[in-house]
Amino acid sequence: MLQLPHLLDRLQEYARQHPFPDQPAQLYAPCDYILALGGKRLRPALLLLGYELFADELDAALPAAWAIELFHNFSLVHDDIMDAAPLRRGQPTVHTRWNLTAGILSGDVMLIYAYRALAAVPDKTVIPDLLNTFNRFATEVCEGQQLDVDFESRDTVSIQEYIRMIELKTAVLLGGALEMGAICAHADPEDAQRLYHFGRLAGIAFQIQDDLLDTYGDPLKFGKQVGGDILQNKKTLLVLTALACASPADQAELRHWMRSSSDDPDAKIAAVRAIFDRNEIPRQMAEAQKRYQTEAFQQLEAVRAPEARKKALQKMIEDLFARDY
Amino acid sequence: MLQLPHLLDRLQEYARQHPFPDQPAQLYAPCDYILALGGKRLRPALLLLGYELFADELDAALPAAWAIELFHNFSLVHDDIMDAAPLRRGQPTVHTRWNLTAGILSGDVMLIYAYRALAAVPDKTVIPDLLNTFNRFATEVCEGQQLDVDFESRDTVSIQEYIRMIELKTAVLLGGALEMGAICAHADPEDAQRLYHFGRLAGIAFQIQDDLLDTYGDPLKFGKQVGGDILQNKKTLLVLTALACASPADQAELRHWMRSSSDDPDAKIAAVRAIFDRNEIPRQMAEAQKRYQTEAFQQLEAVRAPEARKKALQKMIEDLFARDY
Repeated sequence: MLQLPHLLDRLQEYARQHPFPDQPAQLYAPCDYILALGGKRLRPALLLLGYELFADELDAALPAAWAIELFHNFSLVHDDIMDAAPLRRGQPTVHTRWNLTAGILSGDVMLIYAYRALAAVPDKTVIPDLLNTFNRFATEVCEGQQLDVDFESRDTVSIQEYIRMIELKTAVLLGGALEMGAICAHADPEDAQRLYHFGRLAGIAFQIQDDLLDTYGDPLKFGKQVGGDILQNKKTLLVLTALACASPADQAELRHWMRSSSDDPDAKIAAVRAIFDRNEIPRQMAEAQKRYQTEAFQQLEAVRAPEARKKALQKMIEDLFARDY
Repeated sequence: MLQLPHLLDRLQEYARQHPFPDQPAQLYAPCDYILALGGKRLRPALLLLGYELFADELDAALPAAWAIELFHNFSLVHDDIMDAAPLRRGQPTVHTRWNLTAGILSGDVMLIYAYRALAAVPDKTVIPDLLNTFNRFATEVCEGQQLDVDFESRDTVSIQEYIRMIELKTAVLLGGALEMGAICAHADPEDAQRLYHFGRLAGIAFQIQDDLLDTYGDPLKFGKQVGGDILQNKKTLLVLTALACASPADQAELRHWMRSSSDDPDAKIAAVRAIFDRNEIPRQMAEAQKRYQTEAFQQLEAVRAPEARKKALQKMIEDLFARDY
């Protein structure tokens, strides 16, 4: 059993041995570019850790791990177009550095390469199951992105709808990664399902934490401007909770700020934070996060695998929850 | 063994029994829209005819046939964005009727649904082979689209490069459809390859014919304006052949027309056609088409399947070549 840094080294080696073709350069250079921008390789790491709960020969799972990283990068490139985002990880997005055609087409080909990587899983008997899991979350990620887009132009979004959106857009992919790892290892389907729910519930908890940190993170550690969501008038879970639970006066004030452009950004952030604070929104969110987190770990506990192996997975997830930036 | 109209009825029935979800409506309504715009369902028809060379139980091939139609429609929606095309079959394109996000995301989800349809093929043992074939041509179609885009901004494109582009962009999909049909029927891999080459070569011949008909088709039967390619200064095979074989004076005149906008469209069409005619370009192209067509049918002849069954496939392809519009 390998530790996380070694798992990621093996993944990197697999990727190096399975490069994109050189030509047509305008098609494949953007694929190399987005994949080299970094990122934590969280999804393939989850897949490999899920696999290692039950089996050791990592070669059986590496193609599936690379498939999920390719899928994730496909979705980043297309989402960046839809969000008209100029930057990703401080670098120009693909459609900004190249053009719209490059963004669409390199995203398409990365999605197809994800399926090519799936087809390269050495044990062909697991491919139909892998394909079903992959297709399910791939569909859900598109549905989640559509809901996210829909919500922007809606006046009211319920907390339940919002949770469902983040579940589809990001959480099912984490669950699906773990499930695919279990499938590669021929784990019992019940354990594969528990791992799926572990990743899904942890993913929802991460997203709640993300929303919280965007407004309440440590400015010295947070990579972006703290309060960025407030300035962009984003309907985060903080906002939706406040619109559901705050006093009528605070709801009205929050709606006012959400309609205003920010002549004085600091004043706007301070005012909206004060509304959240007065109504104990951060406490409510931290509680919601904790609930999902606890439920997630219950699922992991129920997985029938050696405790020592479950520890590595548990530690990785706990480290992610320990972020205070 | 069923005749073509019955095959397409069965396909339609399969599609009706496997609809897209209703929600999110903005994601799936464009999928229903593009699939309802019509089209000849050429690719699934080829898949089913390829299957019927070797087997009868159509249920074994219908999901794969629907997969290839979904793939084709994904590529239409994304190509229409890249080409900034306002209309398809006389109706607004998806990104025109909805917006860019709908075009990108509904295309993505149709591609994923194509893989879902593949995963629904009842005989799970053929899925790895189907997946390999599908992934191969899906990649090639993206590469072909990229070459097409690249060629627009290039001064010179060789005839060989152009043929390779149309092979990747459209012909391999026809070959791949036939190959997938053979795979569903557990045909001998050699016969599956012959069918692939039959479709690929016939596909190249169709594209050459398309270029020819755009300038030389019967105005009464041709759906679009005859000479449309000339007015759009498209580097068709007619143009590339003329730039390679015409007299130096005619080459210079053609280059002049290709740089000019059309104040008098009829004059431009007439002048460019005259250049083609003087240099016997239509005859050269008809010969090239015939060569590919002949090679294609040689591949079909070599396929070891009952002659009576090969006839249906042969007739369908011959009917397509008999177009004079």
